[in-house]
Amino acid sequence: MEHTKRVDRIGVIAATLMSTPNVVHNYSEFCDMFSISKSTVSEDMEILLSGFEKYKCGIIETIAGAAGGVRFRPYLNAEVKKARIKALAEKLSEPGRLLPGGFLYSSDIASDPVITYELAQIVADKYYDNPPDFVLTMETKGIPFALMTAKALGVSLVIARRDSKAYEGSAVKINYTSGSDNEQIDTMAVSRRAVKAGQKALIVDDFVKGGGTILGMAEMMKECQIKVLGVEVMIKTEKPEKKLYQAVSSLLVLKGIDRISSACEVVPEKDYL
Amino acid sequence: MEHTKRVDRIGVIAATLMSTPNVVHNYSEFCDMFSISKSTVSEDMEILLSGFEKYKCGIIETIAGAAGGVRFRPYLNAEVKKARIKALAEKLSEPGRLLPGGFLYSSDIASDPVITYELAQIVADKYYDNPPDFVLTMETKGIPFALMTAKALGVSLVIARRDSKAYEGSAVKINYTSGSDNEQIDTMAVSRRAVKAGQKALIVDDFVKGGGTILGMAEMMKECQIKVLGVEVMIKTEKPEKKLYQAVSSLLVLKGIDRISSACEVVPEKDYL
Repeated sequence: MEHTKRVDRIGVIAATLMSTPNVVHNYSEFCDMFSISKSTVSEDMEILLSGFEKYKCGIIETIAGAAGGVRFRPYLNAEVKKARIKALAEKLSEPGRLLPGGFLYSSDIASDPVITYELAQIVADKYYDNPPDFVLTMETKGIPFALMTAKALGVSLVIARRDSKAYEGSAVKINYTSGSDNEQIDTMAVSRRAVKAGQKALIVDDFVKGGGTILGMAEMMKECQIKVLGVEVMIKTEKPEKKLYQAVSSLLVLKGIDRISSACEVVPEKDYL
Repeated sequence: MEHTKRVDRIGVIAATLMSTPNVVHNYSEFCDMFSISKSTVSEDMEILLSGFEKYKCGIIETIAGAAGGVRFRPYLNAEVKKARIKALAEKLSEPGRLLPGGFLYSSDIASDPVITYELAQIVADKYYDNPPDFVLTMETKGIPFALMTAKALGVSLVIARRDSKAYEGSAVKINYTSGSDNEQIDTMAVSRRAVKAGQKALIVDDFVKGGGTILGMAEMMKECQIKVLGVEVMIKTEKPEKKLYQAVSSLLVLKGIDRISSACEVVPEKDYL
Protein backbone atom coordinates (compact mmCIF):
# COMPACT_ATOMS: atom_id res chain seq x y z
CA MET A 1 0.00 0.00 0.00
CA GLU A 2 2.69 2.45 1.08
CA HIS A 3 4.50 1.92 -2.22
CA THR A 4 1.41 2.67 -4.30
CA LYS A 5 0.85 5.84 -2.36
CA ARG A 6 4.39 7.03 -2.90
CA VAL A 7 4.00 6.50 -6.62
CA ASP A 8 0.87 8.66 -6.45
CA ARG A 9 2.64 11.42 -4.53
CA ILE A 10 5.92 11.80 -6.40
CA GLY A 11 4.47 13.37 -9.57
CA VAL A 12 2.33 15.77 -7.56
CA ILE A 13 5.30 16.89 -5.44
CA ALA A 14 7.37 17.39 -8.61
CA ALA A 15 4.55 19.51 -10.09
CA THR A 16 4.22 21.62 -6.94
CA LEU A 17 7.94 22.36 -6.69
CA MET A 18 8.37 23.02 -10.42
CA SER A 19 5.57 25.60 -10.56
CA THR A 20 7.47 27.79 -8.09
CA PRO A 21 11.18 27.72 -8.93
CA ASN A 22 13.49 28.76 -6.08
CA VAL A 23 10.62 29.04 -3.58
CA VAL A 24 11.19 27.07 -0.37
CA HIS A 25 8.31 24.72 0.51
CA ASN A 26 8.13 23.55 4.11
CA TYR A 27 7.78 19.78 4.57
CA SER A 28 4.59 20.40 6.56
CA GLU A 29 2.90 21.53 3.31
CA PHE A 30 3.30 17.99 1.97
CA CYS A 31 2.51 16.39 5.35
CA ASP A 32 -0.87 18.16 5.26
CA MET A 33 -1.44 17.52 1.56
CA PHE A 34 -1.04 13.74 1.86
CA SER A 35 -1.54 13.13 5.61
CA ILE A 36 1.94 11.67 5.96
CA SER A 37 4.83 12.13 8.39
CA LYS A 38 7.85 14.35 7.83
CA SER A 39 10.11 11.33 7.55
CA THR A 40 7.95 9.98 4.72
CA VAL A 41 8.13 13.36 2.96
CA SER A 42 11.87 13.23 3.45
CA GLU A 43 12.07 9.82 1.77
CA ASP A 44 9.90 11.07 -1.11
CA MET A 45 12.30 13.98 -1.59
CA GLU A 46 15.33 11.68 -1.68
CA ILE A 47 13.76 9.71 -4.53
CA LEU A 48 12.73 12.84 -6.45
CA LEU A 49 16.15 14.40 -5.89
CA SER A 50 18.05 11.47 -7.36
CA GLY A 51 15.63 11.10 -10.30
CA PHE A 52 15.94 14.80 -11.17
CA GLU A 53 19.72 14.56 -10.90
CA LYS A 54 20.01 11.42 -13.02
CA TYR A 55 17.72 12.66 -15.80
CA LYS A 56 18.90 16.31 -15.68
CA CYS A 57 15.52 17.82 -14.80
CA GLY A 58 16.98 20.45 -12.50
CA ILE A 59 17.93 20.43 -8.84
CA ILE A 60 15.74 19.43 -5.90
CA GLU A 61 17.47 20.94 -2.89
CA THR A 62 16.63 20.25 0.73
CA ILE A 63 17.35 22.95 3.31
CA ALA A 64 17.87 21.98 6.94
CA GLY A 65 16.78 23.98 9.98
CA ALA A 66 13.74 25.84 11.24
CA ALA A 67 13.28 27.80 8.01
CA GLY A 68 14.02 24.60 6.13
CA GLY A 69 12.18 22.69 3.51
CA VAL A 70 12.74 21.92 -0.14
CA ARG A 71 12.99 23.90 -3.35
CA PHE A 72 13.29 23.30 -7.06
CA ARG A 73 16.07 25.04 -8.93
CA PRO A 74 16.08 24.99 -12.73
CA TYR A 75 19.50 23.78 -13.80
CA LEU A 76 21.06 22.64 -17.05
CA ASN A 77 24.49 21.04 -16.95
CA ALA A 78 27.40 22.40 -19.00
CA GLU A 79 26.89 19.87 -21.80
CA VAL A 80 23.18 20.68 -22.23
CA LYS A 81 23.87 24.43 -22.06
CA LYS A 82 26.43 24.15 -24.87
CA ALA A 83 24.09 22.07 -27.02
CA ARG A 84 21.21 24.53 -26.61
CA ILE A 85 23.35 27.57 -27.36
CA LYS A 86 24.97 25.88 -30.36
CA ALA A 87 21.55 25.05 -31.81
CA LEU A 88 20.44 28.64 -31.29
CA ALA A 89 23.61 30.04 -32.90
CA GLU A 90 22.91 27.89 -35.97
CA LYS A 91 19.30 29.04 -36.11
CA LEU A 92 20.37 32.70 -35.92
CA SER A 93 22.96 32.18 -38.66
CA GLU A 94 20.38 30.76 -41.10
CA PRO A 95 20.21 32.55 -44.45
CA GLY A 96 17.41 35.08 -44.72
CA ARG A 97 17.76 36.50 -41.21
CA LEU A 98 19.63 39.53 -42.44
CA LEU A 99 17.25 42.46 -42.81
CA PRO A 100 17.58 45.44 -45.14
CA GLY A 101 19.90 47.87 -43.37
CA GLY A 102 22.15 45.11 -42.07
CA PHE A 103 20.13 44.17 -39.00
CA LEU A 104 19.71 40.67 -37.61
CA TYR A 105 16.11 39.45 -37.28
CA SER A 106 15.85 37.84 -33.87
CA SER A 107 12.40 38.87 -32.60
CA ASP A 108 10.99 35.37 -33.07
CA ILE A 109 13.72 33.90 -30.85
CA ALA A 110 13.60 36.75 -28.32
CA SER A 111 9.87 36.27 -27.71
CA ASP A 112 9.67 32.46 -27.85
CA PRO A 113 8.38 31.16 -24.50
CA VAL A 114 10.29 27.85 -24.67
CA ILE A 115 13.63 29.25 -25.89
CA THR A 116 13.61 32.20 -23.48
CA TYR A 117 12.94 29.92 -20.51
CA GLU A 118 15.79 27.64 -21.57
CA LEU A 119 18.16 30.61 -21.88
CA ALA A 120 16.87 31.95 -18.56
CA GLN A 121 17.81 28.67 -16.88
CA ILE A 122 21.31 28.96 -18.36
CA VAL A 123 21.96 32.38 -16.81
CA ALA A 124 19.91 32.06 -13.59
CA ASP A 125 22.09 29.50 -11.85
CA LYS A 126 24.99 31.95 -11.56
CA TYR A 127 22.85 33.95 -9.13
CA TYR A 128 21.30 31.20 -6.99
CA ASP A 129 23.73 31.76 -4.10
CA ASN A 130 23.46 35.55 -4.18
CA PRO A 131 20.06 36.25 -5.73
CA PRO A 132 18.90 39.69 -6.85
CA ASP A 133 15.72 41.25 -5.45
CA PHE A 134 14.50 41.79 -9.00
CA VAL A 135 15.44 41.50 -12.66
CA LEU A 136 15.61 44.78 -14.58
CA THR A 137 15.17 45.15 -18.33
CA MET A 138 14.50 47.99 -20.73
CA GLU A 139 11.43 47.68 -22.95
CA THR A 140 10.71 45.95 -25.36
CA LYS A 141 12.52 43.03 -26.94
CA GLY A 142 14.33 41.83 -23.81
CA ILE A 143 11.16 41.51 -21.70
CA PRO A 144 10.44 37.81 -22.41
CA PHE A 145 14.02 36.70 -21.60
CA ALA A 146 14.05 38.94 -18.49
CA LEU A 147 10.65 37.67 -17.30
CA MET A 148 11.73 34.04 -17.65
CA THR A 149 14.97 34.79 -15.79
CA ALA A 150 12.91 36.34 -12.98
CA LYS A 151 10.69 33.23 -13.00
CA ALA A 152 13.70 30.89 -12.76
CA LEU A 153 15.11 32.94 -9.88
CA GLY A 154 11.74 33.29 -8.13
CA VAL A 155 11.97 37.10 -8.07
CA SER A 156 10.02 39.96 -9.63
CA LEU A 157 10.61 41.81 -12.90
CA VAL A 158 10.97 45.57 -13.27
CA ILE A 159 10.60 47.10 -16.73
CA ALA A 160 12.32 50.40 -17.50
CA ARG A 161 10.28 52.48 -19.92
CA ARG A 162 11.33 54.79 -22.70
CA ASP A 163 9.47 57.53 -20.90
CA SER A 164 7.69 57.68 -17.58
CA LYS A 165 4.03 56.86 -17.97
CA ALA A 166 1.25 58.48 -15.95
CA TYR A 167 0.04 55.04 -14.84
CA GLU A 168 3.36 54.13 -13.27
CA GLY A 169 3.41 57.08 -10.86
CA SER A 170 6.43 59.11 -9.87
CA ALA A 171 9.56 57.91 -11.64
CA VAL A 172 13.34 58.07 -11.64
CA LYS A 173 14.32 59.35 -15.06
CA ILE A 174 17.72 59.51 -16.68
CA ASN A 175 19.15 60.40 -20.05
CA TYR A 176 21.34 57.93 -21.88
CA THR A 177 22.97 57.54 -25.26
CA SER A 178 21.99 54.75 -27.60
CA GLY A 179 22.22 53.70 -31.23
CA SER A 180 25.12 52.14 -33.10
CA ASP A 181 27.54 54.88 -32.24
CA ASN A 182 25.85 56.11 -29.07
CA GLU A 183 25.03 59.29 -30.94
CA GLN A 184 21.38 59.46 -29.92
CA ILE A 185 20.15 60.84 -26.60
CA ASP A 186 17.16 59.03 -25.09
CA THR A 187 15.33 58.95 -21.79
CA MET A 188 14.58 55.94 -19.63
CA ALA A 189 12.49 55.82 -16.52
CA VAL A 190 11.62 53.41 -13.76
CA SER A 191 8.69 53.71 -11.35
CA ARG A 192 9.75 54.70 -7.82
CA ARG A 193 7.27 52.17 -6.46
CA ALA A 194 8.99 49.33 -8.27
CA VAL A 195 12.37 49.64 -6.54
CA LYS A 196 13.80 50.37 -3.07
CA ALA A 197 17.19 51.74 -2.03
CA GLY A 198 19.47 48.96 -0.79
CA GLN A 199 18.08 46.30 -3.12
CA LYS A 200 20.08 44.22 -5.59
CA ALA A 201 19.29 44.03 -9.31
CA LEU A 202 20.20 41.72 -12.17
CA ILE A 203 20.12 43.46 -15.58
CA VAL A 204 18.89 41.29 -18.47
CA ASP A 205 18.48 42.27 -22.12
CA ASP A 206 18.28 40.66 -25.55
CA PHE A 207 20.98 42.49 -27.46
CA VAL A 208 23.95 44.76 -26.82
CA LYS A 209 26.02 46.65 -29.37
CA GLY A 210 27.47 49.87 -28.04
CA GLY A 211 26.28 49.25 -24.49
CA GLY A 212 24.58 52.61 -24.01
CA THR A 213 21.27 51.14 -22.88
CA ILE A 214 22.98 48.82 -20.39
CA LEU A 215 25.07 51.71 -19.04
CA GLY A 216 21.86 53.73 -18.73
CA MET A 217 20.18 50.99 -16.70
CA ALA A 218 23.26 50.68 -14.47
CA GLU A 219 23.36 54.43 -13.92
CA MET A 220 19.66 54.48 -13.13
CA MET A 221 20.19 51.75 -10.53
CA LYS A 222 23.03 53.80 -8.99
CA GLU A 223 20.66 56.76 -8.81
CA CYS A 224 18.21 54.51 -6.91
CA GLN A 225 21.01 53.23 -4.60
CA ILE A 226 20.62 49.73 -5.95
CA LYS A 227 23.53 47.37 -6.49
CA VAL A 228 23.86 45.68 -9.90
CA LEU A 229 24.88 42.04 -9.44
CA GLY A 230 25.45 41.37 -13.11
CA VAL A 231 24.40 41.98 -16.69
CA GLU A 232 23.18 39.07 -18.84
CA VAL A 233 22.35 39.43 -22.51
CA MET A 234 21.29 36.98 -25.19
CA ILE A 235 23.44 38.33 -28.03
CA LYS A 236 26.31 40.80 -28.09
CA THR A 237 28.06 42.11 -31.18
CA GLU A 238 31.75 41.29 -31.62
CA LYS A 239 32.40 44.95 -32.51
CA PRO A 240 32.88 47.37 -30.92
CA GLU A 241 34.88 45.15 -28.59
CA LYS A 242 34.80 47.81 -25.91
CA LYS A 243 31.21 48.33 -24.74
CA LEU A 244 30.20 51.38 -22.70
CA TYR A 245 29.46 48.97 -19.86
CA GLN A 246 32.29 46.49 -19.41
CA ALA A 247 30.96 43.56 -17.41
CA VAL A 248 28.39 42.14 -19.84
CA SER A 249 27.92 38.35 -19.96
CA SER A 250 26.53 37.11 -23.23
CA LEU A 251 25.30 33.75 -24.48
CA LEU A 252 25.91 34.42 -28.17
CA VAL A 253 28.16 36.66 -30.25
CA LEU A 254 27.16 38.27 -33.54
CA LYS A 255 30.46 38.10 -35.37
CA GLY A 256 29.88 39.63 -38.69
CA ILE A 257 27.34 40.74 -41.18
CA ASP A 258 28.12 40.45 -44.85
CA ARG A 259 25.62 42.65 -46.64
CA ILE A 260 26.83 41.60 -50.08
CA SER A 261 26.16 37.89 -49.56
CA SER A 262 23.30 38.65 -47.10
CA ALA A 263 24.91 36.35 -44.54
CA CYS A 264 25.58 36.77 -40.86
CA GLU A 265 27.42 34.64 -38.38
CA VAL A 266 26.26 34.11 -34.81
CA VAL A 267 28.44 31.89 -32.61
CA PRO A 268 28.26 30.73 -28.99
CA GLU A 269 30.13 32.93 -26.53
CA LYS A 270 33.51 31.37 -25.71
CA ASP A 271 32.39 29.95 -22.33
CA TYR A 272 29.85 27.81 -24.20
CA LEU A 273 32.07 26.55 -27.02
CA MET B 1 12.32 -3.81 -8.21
CA GLU B 2 9.71 -2.68 -10.73
CA HIS B 3 8.00 -0.64 -8.05
CA THR B 4 11.17 1.21 -7.10
CA LYS B 5 11.82 2.02 -10.73
CA ARG B 6 8.35 3.40 -11.25
CA VAL B 7 8.77 5.68 -8.25
CA ASP B 8 12.01 6.92 -9.82
CA ARG B 9 10.34 7.57 -13.18
CA ILE B 10 7.12 9.35 -12.22
CA GLY B 11 8.72 12.62 -11.07
CA VAL B 12 10.95 12.75 -14.13
CA ILE B 13 8.02 12.19 -16.48
CA ALA B 14 6.05 14.92 -14.67
CA ALA B 15 9.01 17.30 -15.05
CA THR B 16 9.39 16.51 -18.76
CA LEU B 17 5.71 17.06 -19.55
CA MET B 18 5.39 20.20 -17.41
CA SER B 19 8.32 21.97 -19.07
CA THR B 20 6.51 21.84 -22.41
CA PRO B 21 2.81 22.59 -21.86
CA ASN B 22 0.51 21.43 -24.66
CA VAL B 23 3.32 19.69 -26.55
CA VAL B 24 2.58 16.06 -27.42
CA HIS B 25 5.30 13.64 -26.31
CA ASN B 26 5.35 10.25 -27.99
CA TYR B 27 5.46 7.27 -25.64
CA SER B 28 8.63 6.10 -27.40
CA GLU B 29 10.45 9.11 -25.89
CA PHE B 30 9.91 7.59 -22.43
CA CYS B 31 10.52 4.03 -23.66
CA ASP B 32 13.98 5.16 -24.78
CA MET B 33 14.62 7.30 -21.71
CA PHE B 34 13.99 4.47 -19.26
CA SER B 35 14.36 1.34 -21.45
CA ILE B 36 10.81 0.27 -20.73
CA SER B 37 7.91 -1.00 -22.84
CA LYS B 38 5.02 1.12 -24.10
CA SER B 39 2.60 -0.69 -21.80
CA THR B 40 4.75 0.27 -18.79
CA VAL B 41 4.80 3.91 -19.96
CA SER B 42 1.04 3.66 -20.30
CA GLU B 43 0.71 2.47 -16.69
CA ASP B 44 2.99 5.28 -15.49
CA MET B 45 0.76 7.79 -17.28
CA GLU B 46 -2.37 6.40 -15.65
CA ILE B 47 -0.85 6.98 -12.22
CA LEU B 48 0.40 10.47 -13.06
CA LEU B 49 -2.94 11.35 -14.64
CA SER B 50 -4.97 10.46 -11.57
CA GLY B 51 -2.52 12.16 -9.17
CA PHE B 52 -2.60 15.38 -11.20
CA GLU B 53 -6.39 15.22 -11.32
CA LYS B 54 -6.82 14.55 -7.61
CA TYR B 55 -4.41 17.27 -6.48
CA LYS B 56 -5.38 19.80 -9.18
CA CYS B 57 -1.94 20.06 -10.79
CA GLY B 58 -3.31 20.35 -14.32
CA ILE B 59 -4.32 17.79 -16.92
CA ILE B 60 -2.26 14.88 -18.23
CA GLU B 61 -3.95 13.89 -21.45
CA THR B 62 -3.25 10.80 -23.49
CA ILE B 63 -3.86 10.89 -27.22
CA ALA B 64 -4.52 7.67 -29.12
CA GLY B 65 -3.42 6.85 -32.64
CA ALA B 66 -0.30 7.11 -34.79
CA ALA B 67 0.36 10.74 -33.87
CA GLY B 68 -0.51 9.86 -30.30
CA GLY B 69 1.27 10.27 -27.04
CA VAL B 70 0.75 12.36 -23.96
CA ARG B 71 0.68 16.05 -23.13
CA PHE B 72 0.43 18.28 -20.09
CA ARG B 73 -2.22 20.99 -20.08
CA PRO B 74 -2.15 23.65 -17.37
CA TYR B 75 -5.60 23.74 -15.85
CA LEU B 76 -7.15 25.33 -12.77
CA ASN B 77 -10.67 24.29 -11.79
CA ALA B 78 -13.45 26.87 -11.37
CA GLU B 79 -13.00 27.07 -7.59
CA VAL B 80 -9.24 27.73 -7.80
CA LYS B 81 -9.76 30.27 -10.59
CA LYS B 82 -12.24 32.22 -8.47
CA ALA B 83 -9.97 32.14 -5.41
CA ARG B 84 -6.97 33.43 -7.39
CA ILE B 85 -8.94 36.21 -9.07
CA LYS B 86 -10.56 37.24 -5.79
CA ALA B 87 -7.15 37.51 -4.10
CA LEU B 88 -5.87 39.59 -6.98
CA ALA B 89 -8.91 41.90 -6.92
CA GLU B 90 -8.27 42.53 -3.22
CA LYS B 91 -4.60 43.24 -3.86
CA LEU B 92 -5.47 45.73 -6.61
CA SER B 93 -8.02 47.45 -4.36
CA GLU B 94 -5.47 48.05 -1.58
CA PRO B 95 -5.13 51.67 -0.49
CA GLY B 96 -2.18 53.48 -2.03
CA ARG B 97 -2.53 52.02 -5.52
CA LEU B 98 -4.21 55.14 -6.84
CA LEU B 99 -1.66 57.32 -8.59
CA PRO B 100 -1.77 61.08 -9.08
CA GLY B 101 -3.98 61.69 -12.10
CA GLY B 102 -6.41 58.93 -11.10
CA PHE B 103 -4.53 55.97 -12.55
CA LEU B 104 -4.33 52.50 -11.04
CA TYR B 105 -0.82 51.23 -10.33
CA SER B 106 -0.72 47.65 -11.59
CA SER B 107 2.75 47.30 -13.14
CA ASP B 108 3.99 45.10 -10.28
CA ILE B 109 1.13 42.63 -10.88
CA ALA B 110 1.33 42.84 -14.67
CA SER B 111 5.02 41.85 -14.67
CA ASP B 112 5.02 39.27 -11.86
CA PRO B 113 6.16 35.90 -13.27
CA VAL B 114 4.07 33.80 -10.86
CA ILE B 115 0.84 35.83 -11.07
CA THR B 116 0.97 36.20 -14.86
CA TYR B 117 1.44 32.45 -15.31
CA GLU B 118 -1.52 31.75 -13.02
CA LEU B 119 -3.68 34.19 -14.96
CA ALA B 120 -2.42 32.71 -18.23
CA GLN B 121 -3.59 29.27 -17.10
CA ILE B 122 -7.02 30.71 -16.35
CA VAL B 123 -7.51 32.03 -19.88
CA ALA B 124 -5.55 29.42 -21.86
CA ASP B 125 -7.91 26.50 -21.33
CA LYS B 126 -10.67 28.17 -23.35
CA TYR B 127 -8.48 27.75 -26.43
CA TYR B 128 -7.15 24.22 -25.96
CA ASP B 129 -9.58 22.71 -28.43
CA ASN B 130 -9.11 25.40 -31.06
CA PRO B 131 -5.66 26.81 -30.39
CA PRO B 132 -4.29 29.96 -32.02
CA ASP B 133 -1.07 29.88 -34.03
CA PHE B 134 0.28 32.70 -31.89
CA VAL B 135 -0.60 35.14 -29.13
CA LEU B 136 -0.53 38.83 -30.11
CA THR B 137 0.00 41.72 -27.73
CA MET B 138 0.88 45.40 -28.03
CA GLU B 139 3.97 46.58 -26.15
CA THR B 140 4.64 47.03 -23.20
CA LYS B 141 2.73 46.18 -20.06
CA GLY B 142 0.78 43.25 -21.46
CA ILE B 143 3.87 41.36 -22.65
CA PRO B 144 4.41 39.21 -19.50
CA PHE B 145 0.76 38.04 -19.40
CA ALA B 146 0.79 37.42 -23.16
CA LEU B 147 4.08 35.50 -23.02
CA MET B 148 2.81 33.26 -20.22
CA THR B 149 -0.43 32.64 -22.15
CA ALA B 150 1.66 31.63 -25.17
CA LYS B 151 3.70 29.34 -22.91
CA ALA B 152 0.57 27.69 -21.49
CA LEU B 153 -0.80 27.16 -25.01
CA GLY B 154 2.54 25.98 -26.39
CA VAL B 155 2.53 28.62 -29.16
CA SER B 156 4.67 31.63 -30.04
CA LEU B 157 4.26 35.27 -29.07
CA VAL B 158 4.11 38.20 -31.48
CA ILE B 159 4.63 41.72 -30.13
CA ALA B 160 3.12 44.68 -31.95
CA ARG B 161 5.33 47.75 -31.68
CA ARG B 162 4.47 51.40 -31.37
CA ASP B 163 6.42 51.95 -34.53
CA SER B 164 8.13 49.61 -36.96
CA LYS B 165 11.75 49.11 -36.03
CA ALA B 166 14.56 48.66 -38.52
CA TYR B 167 15.57 45.40 -36.86
CA GLU B 168 12.17 43.81 -37.39
CA GLY B 169 12.24 44.20 -41.17
CA SER B 170 9.31 45.06 -43.37
CA ALA B 171 6.16 45.66 -41.35
CA VAL B 172 2.39 45.96 -41.56
CA LYS B 173 1.57 49.34 -40.08
CA ILE B 174 -1.79 50.78 -39.12
CA ASN B 175 -3.09 53.88 -37.39
CA TYR B 176 -5.36 53.56 -34.39
CA THR B 177 -6.93 55.77 -31.78
CA SER B 178 -6.04 55.43 -28.13
CA GLY B 179 -6.25 57.29 -24.85
CA SER B 180 -9.18 57.67 -22.47
CA ASP B 181 -11.48 59.11 -25.09
CA ASN B 182 -9.81 57.62 -28.15
CA GLU B 183 -8.77 61.13 -29.08
CA GLN B 184 -5.14 60.35 -29.83
CA ILE B 185 -3.91 58.88 -33.13
CA ASP B 186 -1.06 56.40 -32.85
CA THR B 187 0.68 53.90 -35.07
CA MET B 188 1.22 50.21 -34.43
CA ALA B 189 3.23 47.79 -36.50
CA VAL B 190 3.91 44.10 -36.71
CA SER B 191 6.78 42.46 -38.55
CA ARG B 192 5.72 40.72 -41.75
CA ARG B 193 8.02 37.83 -40.88
CA ALA B 194 6.17 37.20 -37.62
CA VAL B 195 2.79 36.37 -39.14
CA LYS B 196 1.31 34.50 -42.14
CA ALA B 197 -2.02 34.91 -43.92
CA GLY B 198 -4.47 32.21 -42.87
CA GLN B 199 -3.18 31.91 -39.30
CA LYS B 200 -5.24 32.30 -36.13
CA ALA B 201 -4.37 34.77 -33.37
CA LEU B 202 -5.34 35.22 -29.74
CA ILE B 203 -5.09 38.85 -28.58
CA VAL B 204 -3.91 39.32 -24.97
CA ASP B 205 -3.37 42.58 -23.08
CA ASP B 206 -3.18 43.86 -19.52
CA PHE B 207 -5.75 46.67 -19.53
CA VAL B 208 -8.61 47.96 -21.65
CA LYS B 209 -10.52 51.19 -21.23
CA GLY B 210 -11.81 52.61 -24.52
CA GLY B 211 -10.73 49.60 -26.54
CA GLY B 212 -8.85 51.53 -29.23
CA THR B 213 -5.66 49.51 -28.88
CA ILE B 214 -7.55 46.20 -29.04
CA LEU B 215 -9.49 47.38 -32.10
CA GLY B 216 -6.18 48.41 -33.67
CA MET B 217 -4.72 44.96 -33.12
CA ALA B 218 -7.85 43.32 -34.53
CA GLU B 219 -7.76 45.58 -37.61
CA MET B 220 -4.08 44.86 -38.10
CA MET B 221 -4.81 41.12 -38.03
CA LYS B 222 -7.57 41.62 -40.62
CA GLU B 223 -5.04 43.46 -42.78
CA CYS B 224 -2.77 40.39 -42.47
CA GLN B 225 -5.68 38.00 -43.26
CA ILE B 226 -5.46 36.47 -39.81
CA LYS B 227 -8.48 35.34 -37.83
CA VAL B 228 -8.82 36.59 -34.25
CA LEU B 229 -10.05 33.76 -32.00
CA GLY B 230 -10.60 35.94 -28.97
CA VAL B 231 -9.42 38.84 -26.83
CA GLU B 232 -8.32 38.25 -23.23
CA VAL B 233 -7.36 41.06 -20.88
CA MET B 234 -6.39 41.18 -17.23
CA ILE B 235 -8.41 44.28 -16.23
CA LYS B 236 -11.15 46.20 -18.01
CA THR B 237 -12.76 49.40 -16.80
CA GLU B 238 -16.46 49.37 -16.00
CA LYS B 239 -16.91 52.61 -17.97
CA PRO B 240 -17.27 53.19 -20.82
CA GLU B 241 -19.43 50.07 -20.94
CA LYS B 242 -19.28 50.05 -24.73
CA LYS B 243 -15.70 49.39 -25.82
CA LEU B 244 -14.57 50.04 -29.39
CA TYR B 245 -14.02 46.28 -29.66
CA GLN B 246 -16.98 44.37 -28.29
CA ALA B 247 -15.88 40.81 -27.58
CA VAL B 248 -13.32 41.39 -24.82
CA SER B 249 -13.05 38.80 -22.04
CA SER B 250 -11.67 40.18 -18.82
CA LEU B 251 -10.59 38.63 -15.52
CA LEU B 252 -11.09 41.76 -13.41
CA VAL B 253 -13.16 44.93 -13.60
CA LEU B 254 -12.00 48.35 -12.40
CA LYS B 255 -15.28 49.70 -11.06
CA GLY B 256 -14.54 53.11 -9.77
CA ILE B 257 -11.87 55.49 -8.77
CA ASP B 258 -12.59 57.95 -5.97
CA ARG B 259 -9.91 60.61 -6.22
CA ILE B 260 -11.11 62.40 -3.08
CA SER B 261 -10.65 59.39 -0.80
CA SER B 262 -7.83 58.02 -3.02
CA ALA B 263 -9.61 54.68 -3.22
CA CYS B 264 -10.33 52.40 -6.12
CA GLU B 265 -12.33 49.23 -6.40
CA VAL B 266 -11.30 46.26 -8.51
CA VAL B 267 -13.64 43.27 -8.55
CA PRO B 268 -13.62 39.87 -10.27
CA GLU B 269 -15.41 39.79 -13.61
CA LYS B 270 -18.91 38.28 -13.15
CA ASP B 271 -17.93 34.83 -14.50
CA TYR B 272 -15.49 34.51 -11.59
CA LEU B 273 -17.69 35.74 -8.75
